[in-house]
Amino acid sequence: MHGLMMSMPMTIGSILEHAQRVFGSKLVVTRQPDRSLHVMTYRDLHTRVKKLANALTALGIQPGDRVGTLGWNHHQHVEAYFGIPEMGGIIHTLNIRLSSGQLAYIINHAEDRAILVDGSQIPLLEDIKDRIRGVEHFIIWSGADQVACNLPGTIHRYEDLLDEADASHECPVRDERAAMGLCYTSGTTGHPKGVLYSHRSMYLHTMGVNQANAFGLTERDNVLAVVPQFHAMCWGLPYGAALAGANLVMPGPFLDAASLAELLHDRRITVAAGVPTIWNSLYHELKRNPVDISSIRALIVGGSAMPRPLIKAYEQELGVNVMHAWGMTETSPIGSVCVPLSRHRDLDPEAAWDVKARQGPPVAGVALRIARDEEEQPWDDRATGEIQVKGHWVASQYYRTENVAEHFTSSGWFRTGDIAAIDPDGYVRITDRTKDLIKSGGEWISSVELENTLLSHANIRETAFVALPHENWGERPLAVIVPHDRNEGISLQEVRRHLAPKFPRFWLPDAMALVSDIPKTSVGKFDKKVIRQQILKGELEIIRE
Amino acid sequence: MHGLMMSMPMTIGSILEHAQRVFGSKLVVTRQPDRSLHVMTYRDLHTRVKKLANALTALGIQPGDRVGTLGWNHHQHVEAYFGIPEMGGIIHTLNIRLSSGQLAYIINHAEDRAILVDGSQIPLLEDIKDRIRGVEHFIIWSGADQVACNLPGTIHRYEDLLDEADASHECPVRDERAAMGLCYTSGTTGHPKGVLYSHRSMYLHTMGVNQANAFGLTERDNVLAVVPQFHAMCWGLPYGAALAGANLVMPGPFLDAASLAELLHDRRITVAAGVPTIWNSLYHELKRNPVDISSIRALIVGGSAMPRPLIKAYEQELGVNVMHAWGMTETSPIGSVCVPLSRHRDLDPEAAWDVKARQGPPVAGVALRIARDEEEQPWDDRATGEIQVKGHWVASQYYRTENVAEHFTSSGWFRTGDIAAIDPDGYVRITDRTKDLIKSGGEWISSVELENTLLSHANIRETAFVALPHENWGERPLAVIVPHDRNEGISLQEVRRHLAPKFPRFWLPDAMALVSDIPKTSVGKFDKKVIRQQILKGELEIIRE
Repeated sequence: MHGLMMSMPMTIGSILEHAQRVFGSKLVVTRQPDRSLHVMTYRDLHTRVKKLANALTALGIQPGDRVGTLGWNHHQHVEAYFGIPEMGGIIHTLNIRLSSGQLAYIINHAEDRAILVDGSQIPLLEDIKDRIRGVEHFIIWSGADQVACNLPGTIHRYEDLLDEADASHECPVRDERAAMGLCYTSGTTGHPKGVLYSHRSMYLHTMGVNQANAFGLTERDNVLAVVPQFHAMCWGLPYGAALAGANLVMPGPFLDAASLAELLHDRRITVAAGVPTIWNSLYHELKRNPVDISSIRALIVGGSAMPRPLIKAYEQELGVNVMHAWGMTETSPIGSVCVPLSRHRDLDPEAAWDVKARQGPPVAGVALRIARDEEEQPWDDRATGEIQVKGHWVASQYYRTENVAEHFTSSGWFRTGDIAAIDPDGYVRITDRTKDLIKSGGEWISSVELENTLLSHANIRETAFVALPHENWGERPLAVIVPHDRNEGISLQEVRRHLAPKFPRFWLPDAMALVSDIPKTSVGKFDKKVIRQQILKGELEIIRE
Repeated sequence: MHGLMMSMPMTIGSILEHAQRVFGSKLVVTRQPDRSLHVMTYRDLHTRVKKLANALTALGIQPGDRVGTLGWNHHQHVEAYFGIPEMGGIIHTLNIRLSSGQLAYIINHAEDRAILVDGSQIPLLEDIKDRIRGVEHFIIWSGADQVACNLPGTIHRYEDLLDEADASHECPVRDERAAMGLCYTSGTTGHPKGVLYSHRSMYLHTMGVNQANAFGLTERDNVLAVVPQFHAMCWGLPYGAALAGANLVMPGPFLDAASLAELLHDRRITVAAGVPTIWNSLYHELKRNPVDISSIRALIVGGSAMPRPLIKAYEQELGVNVMHAWGMTETSPIGSVCVPLSRHRDLDPEAAWDVKARQGPPVAGVALRIARDEEEQPWDDRATGEIQVKGHWVASQYYRTENVAEHFTSSGWFRTGDIAAIDPDGYVRITDRTKDLIKSGGEWISSVELENTLLSHANIRETAFVALPHENWGERPLAVIVPHDRNEGISLQEVRRHLAPKFPRFWLPDAMALVSDIPKTSVGKFDKKVIRQQILKGELEIIRE
């Protein structure tokens, strides 16, 4: 027997409808390329979103078509977040930091029919113009006058299209499982893979992050989204802020610490979200040039783990509460949020920072386990396993890609590739990425734990551990080390002696390489892919026992 | 094109699964009939719910069958909230305060196959045993030994059934639109009408009330549900607490103010929910016998409006924050919650209490308007209209009842029968019930506003306004008055003079009746149905101009 409740599809449009009706005078604030602030209400947003939906329809875009976006965080990009799904289209956020090869690949793989683009990002498309001939329309958000636009297809000015469009539009989406967003994620191997979000999954994700146990956005919040809109749906913040009626503040292209500090202060930000490197720069900026940012109730950090010393420094020196979140493109992205528990209330500060350095418990709507393949591991904070998730906003497959065992377990859990322990309170502690684990004789060795311990040695500036293929054990750990004093150096024996008290004997490295520099990715993480290539090419001088 | 996200049904079972996995050691606390406290964890609850599901299945209950519950708030009733839907059944909560005729009617209308019942409530069923022969099983929760049970059908002791049942059970519900709950509501006319909730609607309601903009329950909350479990799904608190990992505290049969004060203090309650009469008694108790209840962050009040003086007294004298909520059985029930807005932050106390006396903005997931039939009214805090709602957890029809225009507008809005104004911030202010409005010459007259104003007259103790049929105007207001001093009395001229400065001329009553007592319902509201009958029967002496 079916319940007799109203059958209403959960759509992106209904989020904006709520914002407009109930919180119509709350604001979306954008720092524009000329550094001035653009301020609009949700009522304005609603009007422009309807116009955008009509404008795209007038260009021949059909429900189900993909429309790319290439730009910074600003109100026009927020309009695209709502306006493309509003007319049934799928917003495909393009990462401005991709290589031109990757960018061309994902535009073609998604078959984007139109792309909305910042004037400043047009050169990225011009670089690949001969490879993206399928794109019929380029719609220039801003700075359209300043650029000599050399692109195939039809060129439009965004504001012209909106000027000509009608403000009344009825959303055609009746099926809440219809796709509304597409975001590609780069793996360690092969092409980027696309995650195709539905109206339903994104609506539930929005309800999920707005739970008081998660980000808990309310009308009283001023939310600064430093995380780019081209990263995993901006962690759900544009939708969450709208549903909660929070003011949404967008930094435009100005992600430097001084600009962010100014926004935090001037807009009395209560919730700000970004990656650790951003907050690291901000911390140093605030130490140099203090401003009052006491309005912040949660400095949300995700993308990778924030080091505990930085969490402590924020709280102790700046009075700012750091809130860890964990997730990935495949989880829409929020999987866990580190909100304090009742039993954390009376912890001494050091213990409280230990908790805050964790990634927290799964949010309601996400089931999470740690497992080795299908073998679930206990929540005792000792056993580790791969984080595997199921949930209303977790991908069930990649776009136009066949599922393989690397992505999903046979019982249907999504394999995140992150390795973690979970404490009895359900608090996740990420220890590694699967690909950074070293598997010796069938046992896992954590490169991250070895690195963190070895780093405390007086003569070691940087160190990364990678797997060295081994005939007998499969893999053995190799310590790649940058000594403080190159002349003095360090012996393998000394390295092993330093690690021995903390780890089982088989974890201790039998080989090391002394280098002057460890290769890093664009976001400052060790690029172990490059180190492995250096090993294969014999570019590292390996010292063995 | 469909999104490629996991397709998981939103079920009641998944709420408990989350509670058990993530918050397994958090508590459900019950004051038992002998006044002792029963304490169990969500892990225990999970086990007993699975056993209950198996026990019901073993009795032959099938998915889709209705299972009644008749009892106070306690852990066994919480087990029923989860256990009946867990096996695909529909929990039908029976109101212990119904007349025997109504009770028999709804048991038969729902075709309950089994009823779970407190030992203390068995006499209610014995009274109607010959009229409920369709019920095959009676399952006695507690006190089964003390009562001589004289009921048809098979009698079981609840604990015996659980003892015999297996603790492993797989929920058969795959379709989230399957029904999970049934609650009847008594209207002014005709039989009680049933509202049939689905797993989907109740899951979304749970996510809705746990939004930080609504009740915002978290793991740090201790929730006291004073609102009975037989009232509108206990305002969603058992499900909300479980999903958030809050401790849930149940008062059993002890709803007297002293017992509640003790629980509030001893269990450090942070969120308590009940009707105004309960909180009125509690206030007087706390004034007489002060206890520290500073743990409360929200004293939620619903069912009817709490008078502003009581809200003020709670805050000013007891330091307790009152949070108004509005809804009804047909809205699962939460429709609006009065959380403060950013712009309320700097209000002076008097203005803040004005805000708190309102019912707040609609929660995310509910669309709300005020309208006269289909004509929507502006949100200017002056225009009034009937509150009409749509939403994921709003009824689309009554159970086995044909929809009529009285229930739904032609464009599909549910007609709540409550009359309200809405301010530009979206804050609802209930002014009347439709049935309490007086319609004179096509214009509405608010009985509530007249009552509130006339009550300030020195020689008036109580007053209720009802409609008097009028040949020319349709209806005209009749003031029914209890004077303080019967001998002194009051003249109609004096009544009109007192009201004249605040209301249009046509609002002023042309008739009154002086009485020694105004009939009231079981919850202390004026029973205008009875007053109207007194008028029809000529039992009131009506004084005219």
